[in-house]
Amino acid sequence: MEFTSEQRFDDGVLERGFTLGDVPGILWTPGSAPAPLILLGHPGGLSKMYPRLSARARHAAAEGYAAATIELPGSGDRPRSPATDEARADLRRALAAGETVTDDIVDRLVLPLVDKAVPEWRVTLDALLALPEIGGPVGFAGGVIAIAVRLAVVEPRIAAAVLFAGSFVPRATFDEARQVTIPLQVLLQWDDEGNDRQMALDLFDAFGTKEKTLHANMGGHTGVPQFEGDEGNRFFARHLR
Amino acid sequence: MEFTSEQRFDDGVLERGFTLGDVPGILWTPGSAPAPLILLGHPGGLSKMYPRLSARARHAAAEGYAAATIELPGSGDRPRSPATDEARADLRRALAAGETVTDDIVDRLVLPLVDKAVPEWRVTLDALLALPEIGGPVGFAGGVIAIAVRLAVVEPRIAAAVLFAGSFVPRATFDEARQVTIPLQVLLQWDDEGNDRQMALDLFDAFGTKEKTLHANMGGHTGVPQFEGDEGNRFFARHLR
Repeated sequence: MEFTSEQRFDDGVLERGFTLGDVPGILWTPGSAPAPLILLGHPGGLSKMYPRLSARARHAAAEGYAAATIELPGSGDRPRSPATDEARADLRRALAAGETVTDDIVDRLVLPLVDKAVPEWRVTLDALLALPEIGGPVGFAGGVIAIAVRLAVVEPRIAAAVLFAGSFVPRATFDEARQVTIPLQVLLQWDDEGNDRQMALDLFDAFGTKEKTLHANMGGHTGVPQFEGDEGNRFFARHLR
Repeated sequence: MEFTSEQRFDDGVLERGFTLGDVPGILWTPGSAPAPLILLGHPGGLSKMYPRLSARARHAAAEGYAAATIELPGSGDRPRSPATDEARADLRRALAAGETVTDDIVDRLVLPLVDKAVPEWRVTLDALLALPEIGGPVGFAGGVIAIAVRLAVVEPRIAAAVLFAGSFVPRATFDEARQVTIPLQVLLQWDDEGNDRQMALDLFDAFGTKEKTLHANMGGHTGVPQFEGDEGNRFFARHLR
């Protein structure tokens, strides 16, 4: 892990860019150490997502958490995958034509991403937990939900997760969801035009964990209310302390 | 309003029994005054519900809220209604026989209760708000959901409500739900064996308010997690302060 940039904010939070192999990422640490860690998931495109990720990270840091994120395979400056690009083109074509998005398109779009991203998150976790500023346990917050579900199943160091219900969830993710046993808080935007509400409710139902809470709020995809940031912090306070 | 009993707890909360006409009730007030007020709804039977109501009231009082509840028409020591008793017998018969509970049974069971209870709550509110210990604004928390919905529509002094999704909701309540414009937090027990989950989701969808949040948790009817008490307090803190 090589740090590539560094800035300290007025609130005492230290933000550092890093690379790990060819994967770029960002680490935010609060003044207090060692801090429990929250991994911030996102749909890809670190620079586009930066304002929201940075706000979430600093909100978490104000409660004493470190936060970190990495770029997704095929997003931002990372090499694109022709197969994923083709699947994305097929998805857009189907949506534009008002056709059903087939399981085949979803699988081709999402599953290779999960297969590639999850090991990268785990290697990142190894590197982060080796830093003196970071102590366990670890939470995961955000999307892509298929990546978050796989991580929750295979990575025992992740103790709790806040998930964003999204669309285009592979069938395989439903099967994996049944194997999830860590506490979950699932956010659903009730009126998200790009989201299949029933599918999100079905996925919530499928999770195998006994300690799961669904928070449904009004508004579209990016309209998650501000107070859900606090609720996420309190959820992690219950499970990471 | 006549106070009939009084005890002060170690946490400084004053609990007083009262009667208003022939309606018995309980008022809890914190040390600080004037306190915003939360009306505590329940399914009827004050003495049976007392442990849970008292715990909820004192949890709210710890955050500076007064809380009050009254007995439902036909419950506890109040005169029973033969028509309601007959509707309840029909409901039990239908459930025992595994038959569908008809709209007719639900309407006969719930609507007269709403028509009677809502004016009683409003008169109680008049009396409570005349006390120097109580200041506005007012929240409502609990069931019966058809009563809570009617109150939210007709009583402008109620500024926000935490509702418990329950079963056997009259069709008319769905129509009234569309007229609700105050902020709502709706609790749903996902695995409640006596609850129709889809109906609860439909009712949540029906509410006309733009600021509504659904909190779904695992477990049965009485298994609402402890932390939802804090979440209710924080919801009221956002809307009653």
